[in-house]
Amino acid sequence: MSNTNVIVAGPRGKMGSEALRMIEKEEQFSLVACIDRKNAGLKVQDVEGLPAFDAPIYDDVEQCFQDVQADVLIDLTTPEFGYKHTRLALEYGIRPVVGTTGFTKDQLAELEDLAEKKELGVVIAPNFALGAVLMMQFSKWAAKYFPDVEIIERHHDQKLDAPSGTAVKTAELIQEARESKQQGHPDEKETLEGARGADLDGMKIHSVRLPGLIAHQEVVFGSNGQTLTLKHDSYHRESFMSGVKLAVEHVLKLDVLVYGLENLLE
Amino acid sequence: MSNTNVIVAGPRGKMGSEALRMIEKEEQFSLVACIDRKNAGLKVQDVEGLPAFDAPIYDDVEQCFQDVQADVLIDLTTPEFGYKHTRLALEYGIRPVVGTTGFTKDQLAELEDLAEKKELGVVIAPNFALGAVLMMQFSKWAAKYFPDVEIIERHHDQKLDAPSGTAVKTAELIQEARESKQQGHPDEKETLEGARGADLDGMKIHSVRLPGLIAHQEVVFGSNGQTLTLKHDSYHRESFMSGVKLAVEHVLKLDVLVYGLENLLE
Amino acid sequence: MSNTNVIVAGPRGKMGSEALRMIEKEEQFSLVACIDRKNAGLKVQDVEGLPAFDAPIYDDVEQCFQDVQADVLIDLTTPEFGYKHTRLALEYGIRPVVGTTGFTKDQLAELEDLAEKKELGVVIAPNFALGAVLMMQFSKWAAKYFPDVEIIERHHDQKLDAPSGTAVKTAELIQEARESKQQGHPDEKETLEGARGADLDGMKIHSVRLPGLIAHQEVVFGSNGQTLTLKHDSYHRESFMSGVKLAVEHVLKLDVLVYGLENLLE
Amino acid sequence: MSNTNVIVAGPRGKMGSEALRMIEKEEQFSLVACIDRKNAGLKVQDVEGLPAFDAPIYDDVEQCFQDVQADVLIDLTTPEFGYKHTRLALEYGIRPVVGTTGFTKDQLAELEDLAEKKELGVVIAPNFALGAVLMMQFSKWAAKYFPDVEIIERHHDQKLDAPSGTAVKTAELIQEARESKQQGHPDEKETLEGARGADLDGMKIHSVRLPGLIAHQEVVFGSNGQTLTLKHDSYHRESFMSGVKLAVEHVLKLDVLVYGLENLLE
Repeated sequence: MSNTNVIVAGPRGKMGSEALRMIEKEEQFSLVACIDRKNAGLKVQDVEGLPAFDAPIYDDVEQCFQDVQADVLIDLTTPEFGYKHTRLALEYGIRPVVGTTGFTKDQLAELEDLAEKKELGVVIAPNFALGAVLMMQFSKWAAKYFPDVEIIERHHDQKLDAPSGTAVKTAELIQEARESKQQGHPDEKETLEGARGADLDGMKIHSVRLPGLIAHQEVVFGSNGQTLTLKHDSYHRESFMSGVKLAVEHVLKLDVLVYGLENLLE
Repeated sequence: MSNTNVIVAGPRGKMGSEALRMIEKEEQFSLVACIDRKNAGLKVQDVEGLPAFDAPIYDDVEQCFQDVQADVLIDLTTPEFGYKHTRLALEYGIRPVVGTTGFTKDQLAELEDLAEKKELGVVIAPNFALGAVLMMQFSKWAAKYFPDVEIIERHHDQKLDAPSGTAVKTAELIQEARESKQQGHPDEKETLEGARGADLDGMKIHSVRLPGLIAHQEVVFGSNGQTLTLKHDSYHRESFMSGVKLAVEHVLKLDVLVYGLENLLE
Repeated sequence: MSNTNVIVAGPRGKMGSEALRMIEKEEQFSLVACIDRKNAGLKVQDVEGLPAFDAPIYDDVEQCFQDVQADVLIDLTTPEFGYKHTRLALEYGIRPVVGTTGFTKDQLAELEDLAEKKELGVVIAPNFALGAVLMMQFSKWAAKYFPDVEIIERHHDQKLDAPSGTAVKTAELIQEARESKQQGHPDEKETLEGARGADLDGMKIHSVRLPGLIAHQEVVFGSNGQTLTLKHDSYHRESFMSGVKLAVEHVLKLDVLVYGLENLLE
Repeated sequence: MSNTNVIVAGPRGKMGSEALRMIEKEEQFSLVACIDRKNAGLKVQDVEGLPAFDAPIYDDVEQCFQDVQADVLIDLTTPEFGYKHTRLALEYGIRPVVGTTGFTKDQLAELEDLAEKKELGVVIAPNFALGAVLMMQFSKWAAKYFPDVEIIERHHDQKLDAPSGTAVKTAELIQEARESKQQGHPDEKETLEGARGADLDGMKIHSVRLPGLIAHQEVVFGSNGQTLTLKHDSYHRESFMSGVKLAVEHVLKLDVLVYGLENLLE
């Protein structure tokens, strides 16, 4: 396999440091630089907590792109920085892989045009958890045949919002795939309020919060005499890295912008 | 194993016909008569849908107890009939096993006295599903050590009430075993109402209703770094019969009234 | 929705009687005749255990096709009869939906030619359990991204063979989708023989057999920090009927032969 | 709640450092010293990676027990050191809580005598994972009523041995509780060798190994029409700490030696 030179922006963040660890494990990827507001001029290995790469750290993005021969930029910073980095990377012929939910429609449209003009791949992903993305795609597909479905998501009890973003996103995808329907018995009755969970387009969503849990979701489809269950358990944030790896591999073959990991799946 | 002679009251009901099937399977039990408002004078085998026993059917209970030598009466009728049958059985030296939730406190106290006077065992059980009884007892025990717990029960979508009776009963048993506590994060927020389920003493209960499901419950305890899950799946009403069998075996050795299958467990 | 006239061959079999019940429930389908070796000349409603249709029963297939105006033949007989019925149905302009694993390659090729010549749809399905078919298709897809996978299938303890046919079929589909790999640690060691299950192309398959269980399979994919689980629970043979319904709906729009329910999925 | 003064032996080990973190969280516990071959003379807070306690570190155990007023010694070292520490602690009136599987029968008998003589509690536990201990105890209990059972344990694919120690221990406890029986159909047949798993007294054990998994076990009991499942998921080694906490709380009230956490459960 030929080698891919990668720059990581945001190496000290939770996602960024996992990205470095993924590059360390995968022989076909080489880290050639990092972009970081702090530690400019140091090597990655000099920063406590980061892996032993001798790649240099830059805070001047343009300087970085001039100095270093890179194929791909993995950007795990903020929407503001990510947008600037993406534009500039394309100018320098570097393909960006960006983890963000924060780009506006206008920004996305502009980046799409730029990618097309430059004939360079871009991948922008709100969610790099490949297992969760597959669960959502399979759910959308299954809902065509099994329109009765409930979602049970489980997280540690430090999570403040219920339901989780992934549960709502899953329900919205199912909503696109099936005709709207009110599930359960028309005369069903809660003897304790809330027992039947939250309602989204007639689907029910249940949020479990307990100490010990990490991040889990099951989507249960019911039909005559059978159930089909799609379940994702995320035990550790390194689970995101299989998605980043997939994005880097695909962005090299792309000459347009792709939004969402699901659009990379064959 | 010595033989036990059994009378079944209510043989055409869902539970009653399962009881007959259980007696058919278990060599140590013999059916000696049935009590039924209909079909008096016929044999069991003459009634469509019932197994091939040549035991006689009576509608006159006292006549039945006089004619037939029985050790145990399995009563699966209604609270009104069940109460009369139980009293009369004790008078005739027959030990009753009764499936009912409907006896009043006064009736129970009276039957308790009668059992003691006659030195005869009686078992009255609101729930013969042995697996569910074990799940509830284990839940009560686990809650002493793991006070954070949520209940997810799942039933077919023809069920009208939510949560199920078993879920509420389980939560009440847990409530006895642990100190009252409000679970989840104090600042948690439902962005879709009902997501966090029903609340009973700070515990959350979630009711899933889907076609295809039968009757399922899981009780999930969470603690630092771990979860403990107790799950009962009831696929068929024959599941009740292991409890009836247990009750018959125990009632023979008892000389008092026992209420609830859990009090037969060693 | 316009009405579809259906003939069912094999109405007294387990699958056949479920097919009748499905037609009873679905307003858009009408039963116009049954084909059965027994009971010729009677109406369906005259046969004990069958639903109250007044459709006639034939043992002479050709006579049936001549007398009755039908759109679709649902054949749930044996491979020998199914083959003859399928050929004849096509001659009479009736679209066949056949549940069988038993056709030879030559028979399939011949039927394919005939369907094309007649410009009529045919659906032949070795498995009508739509949930199981989806589980298998999703497994094949997921294996492209998550090559580490184990299968756990659970059945009642009256099942003689292990692993189940569905488990082996699932493993074979995964084998097509991923590069061959030996899973687990290269130095792993069984201290009790068989602990790691059966091996198919480096994948492990585990067969659980217990009383009470019906027919269940879970396919578990593991990757860094996450697992993705696809699970099908079949509680009752009526689960097959959603697949039969799907096949009937599709066969009306087809003008070729399609083998396998998965090839009807969009 | 009154305060308990605790010494931890082995503070830099995986278990030891979790014990410190537990003491940090629990207000009723105070760390008064650590015993460690390294770092003698330093304070705990001076050792990288340990919490900010200003308790002193000793390598001379006797000196430690003389200098410091302690109620309980938590020993998470090796069997050799643990044995010496336990004896000496009892001489100094300190109650030991020891995590080890390595004591000989003679050592245990001797420590039992010493505890009785001194009228001091001792807790020696081969396994501090309270959830796993409960799962095992519940399994033993359930097996009295549901003798048909299979165990499915799941671990990451770096684990070398199969089945896990906990699975074997669980099966042995079940073996004590039920009459020996060969499960499955007498004529069952493996078409792929190993499908039915490992056999222990007629019970089957299945070992799943996949990347992403941590440490999970489910014990499935099957009976007519139902299954009862007991499941423990261990996500992080901090799960052991609820057991250590329980042991410390109980040892204060004991005046004898107790072996095994299960014997502390009420």
